[in-house]
Amino acid sequence: MTAQHAGRIIFPTVDYRKGAIEVIDQTLLPREEKILRLESVDALAESLRALRVRGAPAIGIAASYGMLLALERFLGHRVVPRPDYFFDRVEGVSRFEPAGVDVAAAKRKLESAKKTISATRPTAVNLFWALDRMSAAASSGPDDPIAFCMKVAAEAFHIHEHELAIEIEIGANGARFIREGMSVLTHCNAGGLATAGYGTALGVLYAAQEEGTGFHVYADETRPLLQGSRLTAWELERHGIPHTILCDGAAASLFAAGRVDAVIVGADRIAANGDTANKIGTLTLAVLCEKYGKPFYVAAPASTFDLGAASGGEIPIEERFAEEVTTFAGQQVAPEGACAYNPAFDVTPAGMIAAIITERGVIEHPDRQKVEKLFGGATS
Amino acid sequence: MTAQHAGRIIFPTVDYRKGAIEVIDQTLLPREEKILRLESVDALAESLRALRVRGAPAIGIAASYGMLLALERFLGHRVVPRPDYFFDRVEGVSRFEPAGVDVAAAKRKLESAKKTISATRPTAVNLFWALDRMSAAASSGPDDPIAFCMKVAAEAFHIHEHELAIEIEIGANGARFIREGMSVLTHCNAGGLATAGYGTALGVLYAAQEEGTGFHVYADETRPLLQGSRLTAWELERHGIPHTILCDGAAASLFAAGRVDAVIVGADRIAANGDTANKIGTLTLAVLCEKYGKPFYVAAPASTFDLGAASGGEIPIEERFAEEVTTFAGQQVAPEGACAYNPAFDVTPAGMIAAIITERGVIEHPDRQKVEKLFGGATS
Repeated sequence: MTAQHAGRIIFPTVDYRKGAIEVIDQTLLPREEKILRLESVDALAESLRALRVRGAPAIGIAASYGMLLALERFLGHRVVPRPDYFFDRVEGVSRFEPAGVDVAAAKRKLESAKKTISATRPTAVNLFWALDRMSAAASSGPDDPIAFCMKVAAEAFHIHEHELAIEIEIGANGARFIREGMSVLTHCNAGGLATAGYGTALGVLYAAQEEGTGFHVYADETRPLLQGSRLTAWELERHGIPHTILCDGAAASLFAAGRVDAVIVGADRIAANGDTANKIGTLTLAVLCEKYGKPFYVAAPASTFDLGAASGGEIPIEERFAEEVTTFAGQQVAPEGACAYNPAFDVTPAGMIAAIITERGVIEHPDRQKVEKLFGGATS
Repeated sequence: MTAQHAGRIIFPTVDYRKGAIEVIDQTLLPREEKILRLESVDALAESLRALRVRGAPAIGIAASYGMLLALERFLGHRVVPRPDYFFDRVEGVSRFEPAGVDVAAAKRKLESAKKTISATRPTAVNLFWALDRMSAAASSGPDDPIAFCMKVAAEAFHIHEHELAIEIEIGANGARFIREGMSVLTHCNAGGLATAGYGTALGVLYAAQEEGTGFHVYADETRPLLQGSRLTAWELERHGIPHTILCDGAAASLFAAGRVDAVIVGADRIAANGDTANKIGTLTLAVLCEKYGKPFYVAAPASTFDLGAASGGEIPIEERFAEEVTTFAGQQVAPEGACAYNPAFDVTPAGMIAAIITERGVIEHPDRQKVEKLFGGATS
C-alpha cells in the first residue's frame, strides 16, 4: 500500500495507472485499505463528493487526472506523455498515434468534464486551481492532435509531480524544528492521504524521522470527521512513528502536564498577514501553546497563501451540515432536530504562530512584511 | 417524563416507586426515553456498570435506594417510612408490621448488598459516600424491627431529598451570574440527569430561566462519551432553553468571534485550594476564558470538596479505556490496537475560576482561605 520514493514512504493517495485514476478509499480507512479504480469522470465525481479522496492537494491532483481521463475516454486510447514519466504507471501500455483527433471536440469534452468535477466540492480552492491549470493547458494547446494530447497529459502528471516535490521540500525546511525526544501534537490529517502522498505537517515529521530524529506524536482525533484517529494514526503506524490518539478536549491536560513540546498543523488558507485558516479545533491548540509557552507551527505549500485576503477576517469560513455533529456513522447522537454549530475551519492569528513552513522557506513569527518578502513583493 | 416540583422541572433520573428503583436509561437517550424498573440489587448493579445511571449525585441516590431495595427483598414486604414522604411514590401501598424481622440477619443482607453495589464503580466517590451513610444508619439502627426498617428507609429517601434541596440552593445562589441575552457555554452534563433531577451547572441555568432571564446555551458535545450532545441537549430541549451543540474543538472559534459570554461547568472533585477536577475538556474552556477575558464558573455541592487534597495535583485522575476513543458509537474509528490517551478528568487551577457556586454560598476567585471559610475552618 506504500511506495518507496528515494527512500521515502509515499502513499498512493491518488495516481493515474493503466487508463484509470486510482485512489485509496479514505472512507474505509482504517478498517479497510482499498484502492479504487475510477474509470470515468462520473466515478471520480462520486469519489470526490463522498470524500473518498480529501485534502486540498489530493483533490487538486485527482481533478487534473479527471481531465486526462476525460481526454482518454474521448480518444478511446491511452495518452502516454513520456514512457519514463512517473513511477511505473505506464507499464505495459503501447503508444498510439492520435493523428485523426478532432482537437476542438476534445476541448469541448474537457470543458464539460471540468464542469462535472468542479460541481463536486464547490468551496475547494485547490480543485478550481487544478482544473483551471488543466483548462489553460488545453485551451492554449496546439492544434496538432498529438502535441495537444501530450500537453494535456503532461500537465496532469506535472501537477502531481510538482505537488510531491513541494511536500518533500516543506519537510526538508521544517525538519529542524522537530528535535530528539520531543512530543509533537498535530490536528486533523495533513499527511500523505491529504496530498500527493507525503504530506505537509506530517511531511515535516516524516522528514525528521528520515534524518534519524526520534519523537512521539499526539494526534487529536479531530471531530467531527475524525481525520486524526482514522487517517493520521493510520499514516503514523505505516511510517512506524510512535503515536497516541486523544479526544480534542484532552489536549489541554497534556499541555498542563508538560507533555507537549510543540504543535504542528497544516493550513487550508493563509491570509497576506499570516493569519491561518485550518481545520476547526486548530485555534484551541494555538491558544494552549500561547498559555503554556510552546511553539505552534504551520506547514503548507506557498499556494495556500491567499494574498487577496489581507487578514483572517477576510477568509470565508464554510459552515457545514449539523448532521456531522448530531449523528455518527448513521446513528443519532443528539436529539432529533438539534441545532449545531459546525464551521469547517477556524482562524489562528499570525501573532500566535511560531513559524510557517513552506517549500520556499520558513517565515518565523509571520507578519505582512515577511509574507510579502516570501513572495518577492515590496516590503512596505 | 418530567415532574413539576414547586414550579420546577425535575427529571425522574432515579426514584424509588412501588418497591423498585426507577431510572431513566441514559444509554438510550436521546433516541428513546425509557424508565427502567430495577427490582433487584443485581439489576441495579448492571445499570450502574452499564452507565444507565451516571453522574455523581445520581449514582449516590441509586446506591442508597439499592440498600432499601435489598431490605425490602429480605423482608418480602414494602417499608413505608412516612406515607406523605416524597412525591407520590408510596401510592397504593399498605403498611406492614415487621414485628418478626430478624434485625441481625437484615444487617448482614445490607452489608452484602453494599459489597455488590460498590464493586460496580470502584472510583465513584459519591457511591461510597451514600453506601457508607446507609450502612451507618443500618448498623447504628435500633434493635426494634419496625424502628430499624423505618430508619434505613428514611435514610435513603433523605439522601435523595437532601441532594435535590442542595441543587435548588446552588441554582438560587448562581442565577445572578446569568444575565439577559448572554451566551453561556457548558461542557459534559451537570444537569438533572447527573443528579437528583435538577442539576448543578445546568441547575444554575434553570434557576436563571425560572427568574425570567433569557439566554442561549452552547453545549460542547463532550467526547468521548458525548454527554453534551446526548444528555445536555436533551435536557435543554425539555426545559425549552435555546441551545446549540458543537464539537469540543469548535469552542475556540466561538470565543474568537465574541460569541461566548461565560462558561459554567460542574465538578467531580474540588481540592482545598479550589483547584477543580471535572470532565476532560473542561480545562480548555478555562484557558479560553482566560485568553478572551470571560468568566469561568463552577457549580457543585459542598460535598464535592475534598479537603484532604491540598491542590489539584493530589486529585487522582482516572485513566479510562482506549476503546472509548478508538471507537465511536460501536464502530472502530482508529487503527486496531492504536494507543489512546483517555483521562476521565482534567484539573482547572483555582486561579482561572471566577467563582465556585455551592449550596453554602459562592466563592469568588477561590483560594485556600476562602474555601476554609466556607467550611467554617480557621483562615491561616
